[in-house]
Order: sequence, then C-alpha cells, then structure tokens
Amino acid sequence: MQLGMIGLGRMGANIVRRLMRDGHECVAYDVNQETVKALAEEGATGASDLKDFAAKLQKPRVVWLMVPAGITGKVADEVAEVLESGDIIIDGGNSNYRDDVRRAAALRERGIDYVDAGTSGGVFGLERGYCLMVGGSDAAVQHIEPLLRTIAPGPGEIERTPGRAGDLAPEEQGYLHCGPAGSGHFVKMVHNGIEYGIMAAIAEGLNILENADAGIREAEHSAEIAPLEEPEFYQFPIDTAKVTELWRRGSVISSWLLDLTAVALNENPTLDGLAGRVSDSGEGRWTVKAAVDVGVPVPVLASALFERFASRGEDHFANQVLSAMRLQFGGHQELPAGDVLEAGGRKSEAG
Amino acid sequence: MQLGMIGLGRMGANIVRRLMRDGHECVAYDVNQETVKALAEEGATGASDLKDFAAKLQKPRVVWLMVPAGITGKVADEVAEVLESGDIIIDGGNSNYRDDVRRAAALRERGIDYVDAGTSGGVFGLERGYCLMVGGSDAAVQHIEPLLRTIAPGPGEIERTPGRAGDLAPEEQGYLHCGPAGSGHFVKMVHNGIEYGIMAAIAEGLNILENADAGIREAEHSAEIAPLEEPEFYQFPIDTAKVTELWRRGSVISSWLLDLTAVALNENPTLDGLAGRVSDSGEGRWTVKAAVDVGVPVPVLASALFERFASRGEDHFANQVLSAMRLQFGGHQELPAGDVLEAGGRKSEAG
Amino acid sequence: MQLGMIGLGRMGANIVRRLMRDGHECVAYDVNQETVKALAEEGATGASDLKDFAAKLQKPRVVWLMVPAGITGKVADEVAEVLESGDIIIDGGNSNYRDDVRRAAALRERGIDYVDAGTSGGVFGLERGYCLMVGGSDAAVQHIEPLLRTIAPGPGEIERTPGRAGDLAPEEQGYLHCGPAGSGHFVKMVHNGIEYGIMAAIAEGLNILENADAGIREAEHSAEIAPLEEPEFYQFPIDTAKVTELWRRGSVISSWLLDLTAVALNENPTLDGLAGRVSDSGEGRWTVKAAVDVGVPVPVLASALFERFASRGEDHFANQVLSAMRLQFGGHQELPAGDVLEAGGRKSEAG
Amino acid sequence: MQLGMIGLGRMGANIVRRLMRDGHECVAYDVNQETVKALAEEGATGASDLKDFAAKLQKPRVVWLMVPAGITGKVADEVAEVLESGDIIIDGGNSNYRDDVRRAAALRERGIDYVDAGTSGGVFGLERGYCLMVGGSDAAVQHIEPLLRTIAPGPGEIERTPGRAGDLAPEEQGYLHCGPAGSGHFVKMVHNGIEYGIMAAIAEGLNILENADAGIREAEHSAEIAPLEEPEFYQFPIDTAKVTELWRRGSVISSWLLDLTAVALNENPTLDGLAGRVSDSGEGRWTVKAAVDVGVPVPVLASALFERFASRGEDHFANQVLSAMRLQFGGHQELPAGDVLEAGGRKSEAG
Repeated sequence: MQLGMIGLGRMGANIVRRLMRDGHECVAYDVNQETVKALAEEGATGASDLKDFAAKLQKPRVVWLMVPAGITGKVADEVAEVLESGDIIIDGGNSNYRDDVRRAAALRERGIDYVDAGTSGGVFGLERGYCLMVGGSDAAVQHIEPLLRTIAPGPGEIERTPGRAGDLAPEEQGYLHCGPAGSGHFVKMVHNGIEYGIMAAIAEGLNILENADAGIREAEHSAEIAPLEEPEFYQFPIDTAKVTELWRRGSVISSWLLDLTAVALNENPTLDGLAGRVSDSGEGRWTVKAAVDVGVPVPVLASALFERFASRGEDHFANQVLSAMRLQFGGHQELPAGDVLEAGGRKSEAG
Repeated sequence: MQLGMIGLGRMGANIVRRLMRDGHECVAYDVNQETVKALAEEGATGASDLKDFAAKLQKPRVVWLMVPAGITGKVADEVAEVLESGDIIIDGGNSNYRDDVRRAAALRERGIDYVDAGTSGGVFGLERGYCLMVGGSDAAVQHIEPLLRTIAPGPGEIERTPGRAGDLAPEEQGYLHCGPAGSGHFVKMVHNGIEYGIMAAIAEGLNILENADAGIREAEHSAEIAPLEEPEFYQFPIDTAKVTELWRRGSVISSWLLDLTAVALNENPTLDGLAGRVSDSGEGRWTVKAAVDVGVPVPVLASALFERFASRGEDHFANQVLSAMRLQFGGHQELPAGDVLEAGGRKSEAG
Repeated sequence: MQLGMIGLGRMGANIVRRLMRDGHECVAYDVNQETVKALAEEGATGASDLKDFAAKLQKPRVVWLMVPAGITGKVADEVAEVLESGDIIIDGGNSNYRDDVRRAAALRERGIDYVDAGTSGGVFGLERGYCLMVGGSDAAVQHIEPLLRTIAPGPGEIERTPGRAGDLAPEEQGYLHCGPAGSGHFVKMVHNGIEYGIMAAIAEGLNILENADAGIREAEHSAEIAPLEEPEFYQFPIDTAKVTELWRRGSVISSWLLDLTAVALNENPTLDGLAGRVSDSGEGRWTVKAAVDVGVPVPVLASALFERFASRGEDHFANQVLSAMRLQFGGHQELPAGDVLEAGGRKSEAG
Repeated sequence: MQLGMIGLGRMGANIVRRLMRDGHECVAYDVNQETVKALAEEGATGASDLKDFAAKLQKPRVVWLMVPAGITGKVADEVAEVLESGDIIIDGGNSNYRDDVRRAAALRERGIDYVDAGTSGGVFGLERGYCLMVGGSDAAVQHIEPLLRTIAPGPGEIERTPGRAGDLAPEEQGYLHCGPAGSGHFVKMVHNGIEYGIMAAIAEGLNILENADAGIREAEHSAEIAPLEEPEFYQFPIDTAKVTELWRRGSVISSWLLDLTAVALNENPTLDGLAGRVSDSGEGRWTVKAAVDVGVPVPVLASALFERFASRGEDHFANQVLSAMRLQFGGHQELPAGDVLEAGGRKSEAG
C-alpha cells in the first residue's frame, strides 16, 4: 500500500527503503530537499512541499512522521492543515506518550486518526527490521497493518516461544497494537527504561571485573583507592573483552546489548577516548516519573538513570556538601586526586 | 579424554552425558548409587566408592566436582585423600571464589592442581552447552581443554563479533581461562550479579506496564493506590505477555532472560500462584560485597539484590520504624490494606 | 495585625491560637461551623460564610488557606470571588508548587497577590512554632511578615550558627522568603524529600541492629533467612530502644527524627501492632520528579520513596516476574514462607 | 578511678583531659613522647614505654587504646604482653567489630578482658562528651562504668523522652553496654552507616534546590543540562545557606548534621574550593556488607556509599562501557563537556 513519509533522516529514509523493497509505494518529504532527491532516485515519489505531498497521496492518506521529538507537535499541526477527515497520522518518533494522548484528542476533533508507533532498532533497523509498539484506534491500526508487517522484523530465526501454536500473532512478527493512542510510546518508553537498567547492570559488573586486580594495584597505593582489607582476594587481571565474548554463548545473560558490548571491547579493550559522560534521552526520565505517578517501585531503573546524571557531573554540588559536612564534624580535609593516602584515611572517620 | 565426575545431580549427570556423546570417557561417582547405576547404563564407568573411583582413573587423574557449594570443601578434602601429586581437581559448582583461593593454596602443597569452573547454563545446558568461566594454572587448564571444549556450547549459530577473524578463540567457543584459581568463580559471580540486575530491570519495567491502567482502576479507589494526579495518562490496559513476545524481535533489549519471561507470561499471563517471594543465591551477595571491597559503585546490582530481600519481608522492621515515626510526628495512622483512602491521605503529610 | 483563616483543622486552628496568643486578631471560617464556634470562644471572630468572612476583614485583606491540598484550588477560586484587588491569599497547605505557579499567575490578573507558605511542624507546632518556607512577591511577603514572625518558632534555644552576628535574620527566626510564588512549597517539597531519606536511613540501620542476632536465630533455620556464612559475627541481641535513646546524646546523627524514634521504641520496643505499610504523601514523589526534570541524581531520596511503595506491596508483580524467570531458567520453585530451606537453597542458583 | 591511655592523638588526649577534669587519674603513653610530655604538664602521669606504663597502673589495670584502626591489633598484642590476667583492654578506636570478636576470644585465653567502645563525637567531644557504644563482658563493663559516665555527654539539656521516669538509664547519660565484645563497634558501625544516609539525603536535597533555577539557566543551553521540558517550573534561585539555617528551627529534619551544613554554607555559600571528592571510612562499607550478610535491604545506606565511590571517579569504567554501548547501537557520540546540545540530543535516543 501507499505511505507518505515526512522526515528523511536515517530512520525515516531506512523505513522508506524497507517499505519499497517489499513493494510498497512511498511519497517522501523533508525540509531538506537534497534528501528528498536522493530517496526519489531510489524509487520514492518526492514531494516539494506539504501541499504537493498531500496531493500525491491517495485517500484516506497515511502519513508517517519521523522527525525529532522536539518539533513533532509543530509538524503534526502543519501536516493536519493539508489533510482531511479520515486521514491517518502516524508518529514514529520518540514522542512523550503524554503528547500523543493530547494530540490524538485534538486531531480526533478534526476527524483525523492518530497512531503512535514506538520504534526500536537503531542503526540496524534497515536489515533487522524495526520493533514496533503501536497505539491508536482499532480501525486505524488495522488499516496500516500491511505497512507495520513490512517495517517489523518478522519472525526471523528466533525460536518460537513454547506454548505458542498456529498462525503467527502480530507480536511474533515484531509489531503490536498495544492499546489506545499513547500506549505505543508508553510501551516504548518503558522499553527504554529497561534498556537503561540492563546497560547499567552490564556496565557495573564489568567495572567490578576491571577492578578485580585491585589487590595487585594496591602496591601503588593511591589516595582514592582505599587500602584493601583482603588484597589476597583481588589478584585477578580480567580481560573484559574476552569475558563479554564468552558470555554471548550459553550464558543466562546473553543478549543483544551484551553482543554490542563485546564488539565495543574487542575494538577498544581499554575504551580509550571515551570520557564516560553518558547522555540520557527523555524516555528514561519519563519512565521513572511514570513509575512514581502510579506508585511502582523502580530502584534499578532509577539508579541507572541517576548514574548517567552523575557521569556528567550533576552530582557535583551534593558531593561538595558532603565534603563540607565532613570538614565540619571531623576536620576531614578532602584528599586530592592521585595523592597518597594519609594514615587511616579509610579507617578513621571520627563520626 | 577421561574425566571422573563426582556428584551426579542434574548438572553433573548432564555434563557426563554431553562428554560421552562427544567420545570422552567418564568415571562416575555419587553417594547415591542409584544415580551411578543409571549413568553406567548410559555408558559411564560407575564407581562404588572414592577408592574405586581413583583406581579407575588414569594418571594424571582429572576429577570434576559437581556437588552443592555447602559441601564442596568437605568433598574436595575426601577426594584429595585418594589422589596423588600431579592430579587435577575441578570444582564446577557454585563455590565462593574465596574458598577457591584458599583451597587451591592448600592443595598446591600436596601437588594437586585446582581448577575452578564457573558453569552457566541452567536446565538447558545438556543441549545448549555450558558457558565455562575457568580459573587455575596454565598447565592444568591446558590439560583439560579438550573437556572444556566439549562441555562448552561451541560457536553455535551466534554471529561472529565484527573485528574478530582467523581461528575461533576459546571465548568464541564458550569457555575461557580467566586467570589464576578463583578467577573462574569470580567471573561467574559477577555474571550472576549482572543477571540479578537484568532480571530486575525487566521485572520493574513490566510492573509499570501492569499498572499503566491505574487511571482506570482509580475508580475503585483503594487505600494504598494513592489518588493519581493525572489519571488521563494512565488508561492503558497492557498485555505484558504480548509485549515481552514483541520485544524478542528487533528490539534493543532482546535477550535470553526476556525469552524466558515471554514463555512464563504466555503460560500464565497473570502469574497466578506465584507469591513473589524471590530467593537469592550467594553470588548476588558476594558480588555486592566484592564491589564494596574494591570501591566500585553498583547501585543497580545492589538494588536488585535488596528487592529480593524485601520481597521476602526482610524490610519489615524498617517499615515498622517508618510507620512508628509517622505516627509520632504527624499522628498518621497506618492505612489498613484494602481500606478506603482517608481524605488527603496522600497529600497531607504534616511533615 | 489581622488575619483571616479558612480551614480550622488541627493545623489551621493551632496557627490561629498561636497568632492570638501573640496579640494578632483572627477571623476564622470553616465549612464546619462547630469548629468556628469553638475558636470564637477562644477569642477569634467567627464567620458564617465567605461573604461574611470578607466583610469582617480590613483591607487589604490577608487570607490564609489551610485546607486539604486536593481542594485548595477550588477554595482559592471561591475565596477570590469575595476578595478585591490588593488583597493577599496565602496557601499554607501542602500544595504542589506547580499549582502555586499557575494559581499565582491567574490571581495576579485580578490584582490579588498570592503567597505560598510551606509549613512544617506537625502536631508540635502550637508550642514549638511552625517552620515557614514562603514564596511570593516582595511586597506581599513584607506585608505579612508580622504574622510570619509569630507563627514561626523564633530563635528558641538553638545555638547561633558560628559566623552569624548582628540582628537575627528571618531564617534564624524560623521563616524565610525563598523567592517568587511557588518557591515556598518547592523548598517545603525538598524538605520532605530529605525527611524521607533521613527516616529511611534510620529505619534501615535499625533493621540491621534488629538482625544482629541472626547467627543465634540461625538455629531455627527458616527458609527465607538464608544460611549465614559466618554466624559467629552475628551474635548480638541489640536493644534498639536503648540504642536510639543513646544516640540522642553526643552522636553525629542526633536529630529530631531520632528523638521521635526513641519515643516510639521506648513505648513499644517490638513495634507490635504496626503492619509496616508506609504511606507516602505527594511531596516525596514530587521531589523525585523535580530531580529527574532538572537532571539531579537522587538515589537516596528515590530509594526512600520506593521502599514505601514496596512496603505496601506495590512491588508484587515485579517479584512474581522474578520468581517466574527463576522457575524457567533453573527450575527453582519458590520457597514457601516459613518453610525449611532446601539443601543449597541459597548457594545453588543454576544461573 | 584510674585509666591508662595509649594513643594521644586528638581524641585520646581529649578523653584524658575530660577524665582528669572529673577527678580521674590518667597514665598516658604514646610513641610520640612530645605528646606524653604535653599531657603530663596538664596533670597526667606520663609513661616512657609500655613496661613503665604497666608498672604505673594499679591492678586490675584498665587500658584504653586510641590508635588508628590499622595498628590496633599490633598495639593490642604488645600491650597484652605487659598485662596480666584480670586486666582490661578497651579499644576506643574505629575497629571493625569482626576484629573485636577475634581479639576478645584470643585475649580471653590469657585472662584479659576485652571491651570495645565505639566512640562518636568528632572534634566537639571534649566539651560535648563522647557518645559511647560499648561491648564486652558484664563484669568488665561494670568495672569501667565510672570512666564511661565521665567520658559520655551525660543527660545535658536534651529533653527527656516521654515515658521514661526514675533514675537516668546509662543510655540517657550517653553510654550503653550493647552486648558481648564486638557489639559496641557493631552499633557504632551502623551509626556511621546511618550517618552516611542522612548526609546523602541532605546533600541530594540541597542539590535539587541549587538547580531549582534550571529554567533560568536554560538560556545558556549547555550540552549536558538537557533541555527542560517545563522551564516555567524551575525559576527559583534558592539561597541554600539561608534554607539550611531556616530548617534548624521547628522543622522535622532539624539535626546536628543540618546544623553543620548551615555553618558550612554560611561560611562558604558556593562551597568554592571543595572538589567534591568524598572519602569513605570503613564503617559505611562494613555496614553494607553486614546488611548483605544478614539479608537486610539497605538501598538508602548503600546508595549513600556508592555516591561517595562515584564522587571519586570509581564509576569511570562503567560509564565508558555505557558510552561505548550507545555508540554501537545508536551511533551516539559522546557530548563533550560544555558543548552545545546537538538537535534532539536528549530526545532522540534511537533505542
């Protein structure tokens, strides 16, 4: 069937390519006409402006927005201007699900159906397919199902879950109608929240392995690596690149994120050149806030988020306050980085 | 080559079977002679006692212990009595790596080489193979490498890590010599610590999804589900069985633990019958203690462990203390479970 | 000076009493006319309805709202109807500071000045005074300063902070103009967030003390208290009532919350009768959400909040998921509460 | 009565002074004879070596060790050489309670009674007195009670806990016999664990206040302060020095640690010159390890400890791993510190 794509960045363009490969027809638009031209050469119908875009689409029009979350609202409004009752707008970006809820209600009044499609897949999506978490009305989601089926990864070589039989369910093909508008991005949001947690679990564990030789390094005796009480138990120089490669096979924690870690450590075992300032996108934050709203404890997901904040120095004032208190009650001076530990530094807090 | 196996529980017996399938010869012993007989019928050489066991092994003998961690020390001592200098003992159980360090030193004095093999694979190991994390001397580990190669999963159908070329490294075949004695169980310990974190990340995320309909349930207004401030954003009845199945395909968090979760939720979508009292084995605890020793922050791994403690009610006295304080400073009575919320219950803490 | 109080619950009535004791004049109103009558007998001017209330106040009127947070908006709107440009509304309840920001903007258009006064003090405020965190315009806060000075605790017997000299600053008298409208409740919100953290720190520590005899109780060997590895180090039956009393004197952690804990444990050393289902008010939640918004890591404050959620069983589904996974990968059955530990229960996780 | 003090650092010397002021007689020894001389001038009996020290003490001798935890064991052994059966050694330092358990057992065989006295009070102890948490045999603790009573703060001006009547209990005078040897330092350890939690709660809360103006600073739009979604709610420039001063009066969180924070912020409102590298002493670590041993969840205490680790950069490798993963799955480059946010940096994680 036909789809109009607005936003031809990496993900938008790759979704168009994946659709065309499978025989769908695509009308493509972007403010950057270079990208439109490039995709037109690959077989898409290029549009010069939104009016042209709307004119080239059959009714009811199906429009996929793949633009930065920050401008999705603005673009959706502009697109709605050239659409008609009965048309469908799909937001495939990383919107906050709350915006979907509001936007769907506003568009509903104009007869336009709104679908939110949380999309996971990263740079591998063109080949692997995109995992699609979809929210919207039954009618709209059914209408666009042929598109979803193509964009999604399909069953692939993944072993079927024991207990499942008969025709493949949509979720076994990599897309799912999760519920009303907003639910797609809600599920995607939680997905990313979990992703933060898994990433942090792997990273923390590897950090322990990286320090399993603390009893050997102890000799150097720097200020901040406090004197180990039992150095004889930390004499292991572990090769984390090899260990992550190992865990890909037969271990309980084998996972795609571990695969990626193995790639990264194989390329650069010491991770030289990475400062460890870890960005966070909105999803991890929204996940924690949603959990707080509904009263669900998420210590692991929140800890993973807070580690990222701290990695960028956002804990600085709090740490200064701690040092200031220690100075007050015990006369403890801060140890300068890299300095030699004063006698009893670790053991003699006067508190 | 030949291996002597002591301990014919599920894992010990399956390792013997996996070795025999690949042409190795096994001498099998267990205090339960029924299991010895059963395995003898499958081709193993049964031993009636430790003396018989030692007599049936060629020198240098290679003995694999697969007994509960609690008795490994005792069994290792007994076995050492019937062995000679040059023999090798492998501990394939879930020992604390600190015991390995001590035991290896003690056995070294008698000329016996000690190898610890952290073994992951669960109930699927017979077919899938066991991921092996191995610690010990170079000589001993090289000697037993043919056994390790068979027990391990091998490369399987897992895509090769980009950047790796030439002959398959041991870690690409599912086993790794991690370092000196103790390092195998150390790496296995951290592996399980990570496992706790990943499990918790998935579980917490699903708990949010399970409560994404809080704005609908709000009507019932029970005491402990505090009044939602924006119920319009929590109107999603999400099917967690379908969502976990979906995430197996093309998503960033696809993983074996997610596969298992999908199986479990497909079988029993409401998880009826599970009380949610989550046990913990030693590894998760040891991981946190090791991190504390070497000064590595592990908020995610520790949170995952503490959630398990709390799931069993180990937070009870702390919670009583909190209720007692609230009663003191604000006159706040505890809300009985299932009762109706008193006006302002959530909003009016006098603090 | 004169103040009109709306809402004569415990806190509203006590503030009126504290003001009258110090020579201020109060007009009092509540939907419950009984409470109006009672306070009138103590010297207040009772009002029969809002119109009457407004008529009895001198211009510019100063009105203090002390009503449940859930209805503050509604009451503020009703009161604004009977007020005029130049009048001042003070919200002394536990409002979300975001509502203050919105409400102040709305009332500003009508010429009414809005002040938010975060109020801490609990049941002890009548005697001890209330700590006041105030947001609003300079003019409005200056106008009501005589009232604030009376309601606040004053300098009391608290030792002056070294380095401070000269006239007592407002904050040394127990009230502070924190910034524009909303800032008062913002500071109060963070205050309560900190309160959660301090309470949790004390409660967790006492829980360790309560279990310092685990090595003695070990004999009983229940299922969920996993076998201690070194029971010889946990042989201390600690009296937590005595310890908290002790820490009130000369220790670094002496604090009012510890005083209250000592009272509670002295009254009821085992805390019998408390179920440990800990409620949470909005402030703790808002604090974590504000921290997430501005990117500040708050692992301690968030953990304290999540512990309360978990104390009420909100972790249940997550825990069921964990048990379900363990059942899948290792065939681990849940241990029933109070049952005897199966051999190796703690030590033999197959993962 | 008479006490022999070994170790005349700040705390040891001040305890001697406090004892002499109250009429006790002290024999003082330190490897640094300068400090011995100084204290002799204040009235103590100086000792030139351990033999001399023992000779100058009446039997049964009572010896207080106040030396760095790292050498306590060695010093205790040396002292034991010059003592006799019936004498008492008190360890007032910051020993690990496990060492007490072992040391008490070893000394018991020689007839020497061992008492551990956890001592809190910091630089203020000389005037304020020291809060004493004491472990040991009934006989030994009773024997030294006159000394404990003097060293402790006494009842002071602290209001008596409601419900307590009659003679003041020891805990109301600032010392407590907690249980057998080791229990004193165990209680002190948990005390310090709680201290970490309280300090972190205050520090995290103040960090939120310090960032309550994020919506104003937003204009600068640096890379790592992600675009605020609702900057209108973060327009508060809060003076944390004034707020902490305020909270000392009438608020629920008033506490000695808050008093100290107010002092520190009054002296140096921006905490300039503090790097925020927060040291940790053994107690916080031992507390978490003890909690893990007995299965008590301590998310707050552990988070407080891990924040300190992270403040010193011990999270570095973990953060590098996170950045490396993000680079793999989404092509996300790290944002350099202080750089301008690339479009969608916060909002467009491809995961």
